[in-house]
Amino acid sequence: MSVKKICVVITARPSYSRIKTALWAIQKHKDLQLQLVVAGSALLDRYGNAINFIEKDGFSIDEKVFMVLEGENKTAMAKTTGLGLMELSNVFYNLKPDAVITIADRFETIATSIAAAYQNIPLIHIQGGEVTGNIDEKVRHANTKLADVHLVASEDAKQRVIKMGEDPKTVFNTGCPSIDIAKMVLENPKLNFNPIEKYGGVGEIGDWKNGYIVVMQHPVTNEYNKAKDDILKTLHAAKELDIPTFWFWPNVDAGADGTSNGIRSFREIEKPKNIRFFKNMESDDFLKLLFNSKCLIGNSSVGIRECSFLGVPVVNIGTRQNRRLRGTNVIDVGYNKTHIKEAIQKQIETAKMEGEQIYGDGDSGKKIADVLARIDLKFHKTINY
Amino acid sequence: MSVKKICVVITARPSYSRIKTALWAIQKHKDLQLQLVVAGSALLDRYGNAINFIEKDGFSIDEKVFMVLEGENKTAMAKTTGLGLMELSNVFYNLKPDAVITIADRFETIATSIAAAYQNIPLIHIQGGEVTGNIDEKVRHANTKLADVHLVASEDAKQRVIKMGEDPKTVFNTGCPSIDIAKMVLENPKLNFNPIEKYGGVGEIGDWKNGYIVVMQHPVTNEYNKAKDDILKTLHAAKELDIPTFWFWPNVDAGADGTSNGIRSFREIEKPKNIRFFKNMESDDFLKLLFNSKCLIGNSSVGIRECSFLGVPVVNIGTRQNRRLRGTNVIDVGYNKTHIKEAIQKQIETAKMEGEQIYGDGDSGKKIADVLARIDLKFHKTINY
Amino acid sequence: MSVKKICVVITARPSYSRIKTALWAIQKHKDLQLQLVVAGSALLDRYGNAINFIEKDGFSIDEKVFMVLEGENKTAMAKTTGLGLMELSNVFYNLKPDAVITIADRFETIATSIAAAYQNIPLIHIQGGEVTGNIDEKVRHANTKLADVHLVASEDAKQRVIKMGEDPKTVFNTGCPSIDIAKMVLENPKLNFNPIEKYGGVGEIGDWKNGYIVVMQHPVTNEYNKAKDDILKTLHAAKELDIPTFWFWPNVDAGADGTSNGIRSFREIEKPKNIRFFKNMESDDFLKLLFNSKCLIGNSSVGIRECSFLGVPVVNIGTRQNRRLRGTNVIDVGYNKTHIKEAIQKQIETAKMEGEQIYGDGDSGKKIADVLARIDLKFHKTINY
Amino acid sequence: MSVKKICVVITARPSYSRIKTALWAIQKHKDLQLQLVVAGSALLDRYGNAINFIEKDGFSIDEKVFMVLEGENKTAMAKTTGLGLMELSNVFYNLKPDAVITIADRFETIATSIAAAYQNIPLIHIQGGEVTGNIDEKVRHANTKLADVHLVASEDAKQRVIKMGEDPKTVFNTGCPSIDIAKMVLENPKLNFNPIEKYGGVGEIGDWKNGYIVVMQHPVTNEYNKAKDDILKTLHAAKELDIPTFWFWPNVDAGADGTSNGIRSFREIEKPKNIRFFKNMESDDFLKLLFNSKCLIGNSSVGIRECSFLGVPVVNIGTRQNRRLRGTNVIDVGYNKTHIKEAIQKQIETAKMEGEQIYGDGDSGKKIADVLARIDLKFHKTINY
Repeated sequence: MSVKKICVVITARPSYSRIKTALWAIQKHKDLQLQLVVAGSALLDRYGNAINFIEKDGFSIDEKVFMVLEGENKTAMAKTTGLGLMELSNVFYNLKPDAVITIADRFETIATSIAAAYQNIPLIHIQGGEVTGNIDEKVRHANTKLADVHLVASEDAKQRVIKMGEDPKTVFNTGCPSIDIAKMVLENPKLNFNPIEKYGGVGEIGDWKNGYIVVMQHPVTNEYNKAKDDILKTLHAAKELDIPTFWFWPNVDAGADGTSNGIRSFREIEKPKNIRFFKNMESDDFLKLLFNSKCLIGNSSVGIRECSFLGVPVVNIGTRQNRRLRGTNVIDVGYNKTHIKEAIQKQIETAKMEGEQIYGDGDSGKKIADVLARIDLKFHKTINY
Repeated sequence: MSVKKICVVITARPSYSRIKTALWAIQKHKDLQLQLVVAGSALLDRYGNAINFIEKDGFSIDEKVFMVLEGENKTAMAKTTGLGLMELSNVFYNLKPDAVITIADRFETIATSIAAAYQNIPLIHIQGGEVTGNIDEKVRHANTKLADVHLVASEDAKQRVIKMGEDPKTVFNTGCPSIDIAKMVLENPKLNFNPIEKYGGVGEIGDWKNGYIVVMQHPVTNEYNKAKDDILKTLHAAKELDIPTFWFWPNVDAGADGTSNGIRSFREIEKPKNIRFFKNMESDDFLKLLFNSKCLIGNSSVGIRECSFLGVPVVNIGTRQNRRLRGTNVIDVGYNKTHIKEAIQKQIETAKMEGEQIYGDGDSGKKIADVLARIDLKFHKTINY
Repeated sequence: MSVKKICVVITARPSYSRIKTALWAIQKHKDLQLQLVVAGSALLDRYGNAINFIEKDGFSIDEKVFMVLEGENKTAMAKTTGLGLMELSNVFYNLKPDAVITIADRFETIATSIAAAYQNIPLIHIQGGEVTGNIDEKVRHANTKLADVHLVASEDAKQRVIKMGEDPKTVFNTGCPSIDIAKMVLENPKLNFNPIEKYGGVGEIGDWKNGYIVVMQHPVTNEYNKAKDDILKTLHAAKELDIPTFWFWPNVDAGADGTSNGIRSFREIEKPKNIRFFKNMESDDFLKLLFNSKCLIGNSSVGIRECSFLGVPVVNIGTRQNRRLRGTNVIDVGYNKTHIKEAIQKQIETAKMEGEQIYGDGDSGKKIADVLARIDLKFHKTINY
Repeated sequence: MSVKKICVVITARPSYSRIKTALWAIQKHKDLQLQLVVAGSALLDRYGNAINFIEKDGFSIDEKVFMVLEGENKTAMAKTTGLGLMELSNVFYNLKPDAVITIADRFETIATSIAAAYQNIPLIHIQGGEVTGNIDEKVRHANTKLADVHLVASEDAKQRVIKMGEDPKTVFNTGCPSIDIAKMVLENPKLNFNPIEKYGGVGEIGDWKNGYIVVMQHPVTNEYNKAKDDILKTLHAAKELDIPTFWFWPNVDAGADGTSNGIRSFREIEKPKNIRFFKNMESDDFLKLLFNSKCLIGNSSVGIRECSFLGVPVVNIGTRQNRRLRGTNVIDVGYNKTHIKEAIQKQIETAKMEGEQIYGDGDSGKKIADVLARIDLKFHKTINY
């Protein structure tokens, strides 16, 4: 049997965290060869420059694809996807992979899916079958219908993919690779670095060493005009609680500028004394920061996945993670300053929780590589009913 | 209640036949306003120039979008889709429709779907829920997962869309508008024109007035290299049977040049005396030609849909219509000259058959307009399980 | 004679100032009809949102084109141009103008030129024939070679265009429309608004009413890596001089992020007490601000054009305006903090200067409209030697 | 001194003939490394599939770029150029050449020029400075203004480039590489193959061994609607003369379908007995065919260049080669059947002519490589006056 060339397309910082241990495992597997494409916001300074982390982690990159259109509206999002589809078609034509991996449900991931499917390249979809509450929902399930193999992160997701008509023999619950990193962190969870010295950031934070919270809140695409309002609720809640706060900028989305403008104007006007803003952090450092925090606030999927495994209390705001399978560590609230504050206080009172394994046991990367090496790759399917 | 602007995107000649009566009904409905976009191969002479028929039928066109990339491979198909997505994003941004209609399952229809979905425009998918055997299968179901409303053509399709997790309240069996035209033809089925005088065509055909057959065979995308071989089987079968034959060129697809080259080289070498080749025909003329024929051969969906309603015997070749719901008028064969000849002879012996109504009763266009006027348009959904 | 449809494409804030009075004159002319396309960074908040000013000035916009790719490198600049070319081709196809106007020499203006020239639409180039020192130089002269009519801003430019082989009968010295606005300002030059109250801005500035300077410095494309260094020289010079300073952010360019990052990090670290940063200002307000200032610093073409007419002293830094025809109001210096400081001090000591008319007498907009109405539009030319 | 990477972009069959010996010389030169990009119609079967010849000649191809949009109008031409610009920007970003070569004046060559110039890659323009009569004229001179080095094919062209303001130190008369092949052919000019056996072709030709003519006539872009009419004049002239005729299909252009349709309908209706149609021929075979012919008819630049060197009589039709420097072997006529017939008869009566060296002495490839190796590559220039 010859070595299979597996092409992975990373289009954003959070996608990299979700796939890193699988990349390692693919690279190490004797029957697999990794082809790595870095595209979209993963190349851009404004969105955390994931490519720096990728290169620092020792991966070599086969192709870089600039495809993000500037703009403050959803049209730019659609056009970015079209441009990505054109570019990735070329990339796959030249790299000639045996299979392509598309990750989860960001809007531009469907460009990867179509570029592979239309060129008869077997498509592997990672982390399908979950349920959320916005455009991601449409993208994720469309990716499922374009994909030939499904590597899902939970039993719940597996059953859903099968229900959608996929052949059960093509659906594998490998868990989520992000849990692998959480597991590594759990083996040595001490905060062995100073976040401010290592990552800079801007803004005053006060004495965070006696306890702090972390915020990561992304815009919700189909409520575009509310992006600025929404973020201000959380900003004011954090300011009023007056607990040292590490705040992370959102990734690229149609609402990015609404959210970002909200943050910028808040800083200018309110001059908070307890919030320091960061663009980015290496994922294991970020998990250590979370593990040692009192609580994570926002709408990041990290709160649903890694934090359930780590036992970190989470205040999940709004609809972005709607219906996604969650552990007992999560309290859900709406965009309401008072509710956000109350939920944070309640979570802070909770002692550190027991971790749960609903998104895997920490060996997902290796499982993914093993499935890829073992299965017969096809690009032809019909619905199962 | 204000008038709803319904934007329909037509990207190919066959899609126009599948939607024409719905366009009329939308245009006539007092609560609806039609926005018509003609794109892709529907603008191109090589593929039958559907736009001429559209204008002749009296529709005014809001935007024309050139998006077809030349090329003999699947990469061009993927890039065409990417380009279409970029262009249609603009078009919808400027037209600001209340809903967008995407038709069936051609590869470029997903560009329409994404351009609408990503801009939070409610997406109506026509003719989802069916089952076939190639890339169309992936496209059709991905369109379903991107769409908010599903206007399907059969009860079978309705149940399948619901099974895929769509809310039953958003799925309507309106039948297929192509059956509406077939019904109109049945009211006056006489061949009241001379196809050669009206449409030209090239090649000798002999005395067709005493009985003839019709061929329409498209390339099958994921068997690209076989396209030329496949078409030659049918060409030789038609020549050997020596029955007057009306042969229609295929529409645009990655394999188009394989099939077209096959036809061209066959004509040059074999100089058949009983086959005349046509680029295109108005859809009601075409149906009359079919109704008065002894048999339709090939892999067109017309054989499955209109011919079942009209009671025309069909020899369906190969995998293109695999698993699509069919009537008793169809005999399926593989790419085998002998089998094709035998099936044609058997169908010719069959007397004219009784029509069946599996794809609608001939009032689909009106039903579609009525649903569009009645329903509440949303662009947000979550899977039903 | 029928009315001529004149399509003007505005892709950036500074281009708008350069054409505004011509737009007015075209709109008013009985033999002309204005078609206005706003594209590129003119639509983006990050670059001053020129579209707001355009709408406020009462123009109606025929098409908006999103085309700016994000990225910190020159590849994004090239791809933006390609995307613009694709989009503008459509726009012209649909608007069917009798002539297209492309403005000056920004990188994306060549997209307008090609989209028109390749579709056999007569192309009018405004402000060709000048000389500068970077990529603009190549773009400007390539625009000249694609254009059919040349409306230049100085006698010097006229002679240069003719020398390049253009037919003298197609070259007209109409002056620069930006001078028209300067002339209007001269009629009422008092600073009749408070810039901070009207435009906000960020940063402390101190008591500016007793005298201030203005800075506007853009990145120089082909010295990309130096963008941050370059801007820091000027920032430190301004801080050390400790004169109240109105500082304007640069427009979009490959180096934008280098320059912008330089400004942001300087503010964070140095916390200057005499510099306030502005994104944008209406052009006549900006000219009043300049007229009442002690000096303009940077590399903006405003220093070369409007300031020569207004008699405002200018310190021009670096190569961006190299070889552009200039008046006696300009002192040129390199990227050197000491030289910049010395030049500013020297200019401040200079009393207000006499204005010069090297770029027109303030009636350029009307002259442009008159030429357009008068000339015979062709799209076919051959070099004159 | 390190080896210079020279990237050559070939977008069409005729461009390959114009550069082939330079490719060889670059490949062989110890100080140069060839990077070869094949794009556009050079990849397409419909336009002669130049890539087959390139591979057969032993070149390895670094990137293939599909960029040709289908369409029967000039909009497709403009969009093809935009798409090419986007794609080639990526290609150069990834290949990191030390210089890029753009060839002559086809519409899509400006995509190569911009992609290089905007990324600060020194641009070499081959065969600038000539004069013709359509859109090529604008493209060629715009390429000159974007280029840093000019390798022209005649002394006349050299003087014109310098007059346009280019630094004389960057302009080199290397002659045209197509003459190198003509020189090789002259060393062994016998028609040592049977064109019909080797290349097939379609149509009857009769006994060509006793004398024949050759036709190659391309559509003229800015007279799009006349393409079909124009070609019919030549077709009828060739039929009436009743001399065995080798006819070559045109390359891709906006009018390609007009011309192609003209040829197809002529064949169907007129059934000529003395014209055989060919898609393509290897360039040295083609030159042998020309050398042994009585006359070349049409508007190909081969008639102007190679035929002047070979001493083959030429009837040049229409405006396409207007003002291009020509030898005594050319008679110019308009689109007029009678004039075309008379000119052909006159040329046939002329005995074989003496060759002229106006486009080089047959050593151009080597001269080009030597200049590339010797010069200092820069990407920054200003006009010389």
